[in-house]
Amino acid sequence: MTEPAYVAVDWGTSSFRLWLIDRAGQILAERRSGEGMLAAAKAGFAAVLQSHLAAIEAPDHLPVLVCGMAGARTGWVEAGYVDTPAPLAAILKQAARVPGVARDIRILPGIAQRDAHAPDVMRGEETQLLGALGLDAPGNALVCMPGTHSKWVRVSNGTVTDFSTFMTGELFGAVSRETILSLAVAGADDAEDAASFKAAVLAGFEAPALAANLLFRARSRQLLFGGTPAAARETLSGTLIGVELAAGLSGALPQAGITLIASGRLGMLYRLAFETLSVAAAPIDADEAVRNGLSMAAAAIWTN
Amino acid sequence: MTEPAYVAVDWGTSSFRLWLIDRAGQILAERRSGEGMLAAAKAGFAAVLQSHLAAIEAPDHLPVLVCGMAGARTGWVEAGYVDTPAPLAAILKQAARVPGVARDIRILPGIAQRDAHAPDVMRGEETQLLGALGLDAPGNALVCMPGTHSKWVRVSNGTVTDFSTFMTGELFGAVSRETILSLAVAGADDAEDAASFKAAVLAGFEAPALAANLLFRARSRQLLFGGTPAAARETLSGTLIGVELAAGLSGALPQAGITLIASGRLGMLYRLAFETLSVAAAPIDADEAVRNGLSMAAAAIWTN
Repeated sequence: MTEPAYVAVDWGTSSFRLWLIDRAGQILAERRSGEGMLAAAKAGFAAVLQSHLAAIEAPDHLPVLVCGMAGARTGWVEAGYVDTPAPLAAILKQAARVPGVARDIRILPGIAQRDAHAPDVMRGEETQLLGALGLDAPGNALVCMPGTHSKWVRVSNGTVTDFSTFMTGELFGAVSRETILSLAVAGADDAEDAASFKAAVLAGFEAPALAANLLFRARSRQLLFGGTPAAARETLSGTLIGVELAAGLSGALPQAGITLIASGRLGMLYRLAFETLSVAAAPIDADEAVRNGLSMAAAAIWTN
Repeated sequence: MTEPAYVAVDWGTSSFRLWLIDRAGQILAERRSGEGMLAAAKAGFAAVLQSHLAAIEAPDHLPVLVCGMAGARTGWVEAGYVDTPAPLAAILKQAARVPGVARDIRILPGIAQRDAHAPDVMRGEETQLLGALGLDAPGNALVCMPGTHSKWVRVSNGTVTDFSTFMTGELFGAVSRETILSLAVAGADDAEDAASFKAAVLAGFEAPALAANLLFRARSRQLLFGGTPAAARETLSGTLIGVELAAGLSGALPQAGITLIASGRLGMLYRLAFETLSVAAAPIDADEAVRNGLSMAAAAIWTN
């Protein structure tokens, strides 16, 4: 095993991921858990981190670089924001050092859009953007980053000019679990229904004002015509994603098309949604992007 | 006290309301409780009804007329649907008799829109429409009925031609309680903020595709600029109502304007929303409408 150089941590609202990285950027060990900001705020951030460092036998002197919600006001140590227009390079320079500990632990800042008409914030996605686009990518990109809180970001010559958060993923969870539609999707398990999903993406994209009606139709359709729980669930998912895409795609699209930073099932769904609308979207793996961004930041902070 | 003629019951998903009515249509007694369909399905519909009848000392021979979700498949006795185009007069003729009890208890049917492209159902609102518009009102009406599941209904010469359900109220509840926005609205209590509400109605009406972004901004605004929980809550409420109105008002509007059947705080909010958009809306009290509809049906069933 080569010598570890630093530890990279993506510490989100509800997930914790840690990688032990060597000087060449290779992964030597990995940890994943549900100890996100919400859980860690109770258990203690230092204790959660230390338990994972102990599990991979990380040496005491090894520095740790963190991105994500651990840097929020309600997180571990507030890491502030870089304000838009935000050069991605500025993120590397404003990491907050965790005080009162021997180990060198730093948390990367988020990005804030201090526009009274369209206020917005991100934490974690800026590091994905850094890893996906690089420090000084020339030209314009429109980046779609699906998730609990999806981000649509415009990046021009390495600078985040503006962005919008859509709470699509969280709406899907709340609607599926906490409304009458929970009856319609009960028992859907992992069954897929691409036809229902695509029809719902189109319907939501074409008539976003009907969103609250399109969602209810999933229930009415079952009552009057039957239909599987999977069809209902894919209808909810497709409707909400279709409405998000109606807003995200409403402005000018860059010649290169959309950059889609996503992983797993969510990435698959968004690729299918873009395909349904005949919009070109270049996929980038979100896990790789955040690890790459953390590596770039670690190199800038500790090896320069 | 005059002689009671019948008992009228509005039995919704989460509420139960009962009135003891005399031959002249006067209310002799009233009961309200949270024993809606969901609670009554556990406690037993017959037992819940009997406890309220006992409390008002209703004679054993007195007939009972019920509207609402008690007639659903998951309710007490399935009361079926009148299909669109549905003459309001047809509702009076299809009441389902509760079997196996000595008392004459009947449940009014709902209305179904068996359109594969826009399937929809209502239970309870048909009785409100009957009470608000009458049996054979000439001309065209566009009726907005706010609620957990808001209904927008087109009625032409006493016939429901088509309608759409928007789960606006339920979305508001799920979003306020079960998402990150619960932090933004915590402690809002009953404080009002008409300016935030009106601004959000306009924003949702003008850009419905941005719904999931406009909701999240309520949180971002607090983080970056401060702001009261009441402002955040009224922003959520106004956004969702604004999006609903964008769809509801997208078709042709009748000369007479919108008919708004609503009560209490919800009625106030929708009146303010219509006012914000400079749309004329004639308000009708929903409680009176449903009582009036039940009285008309009772008269048709038992005195003719």
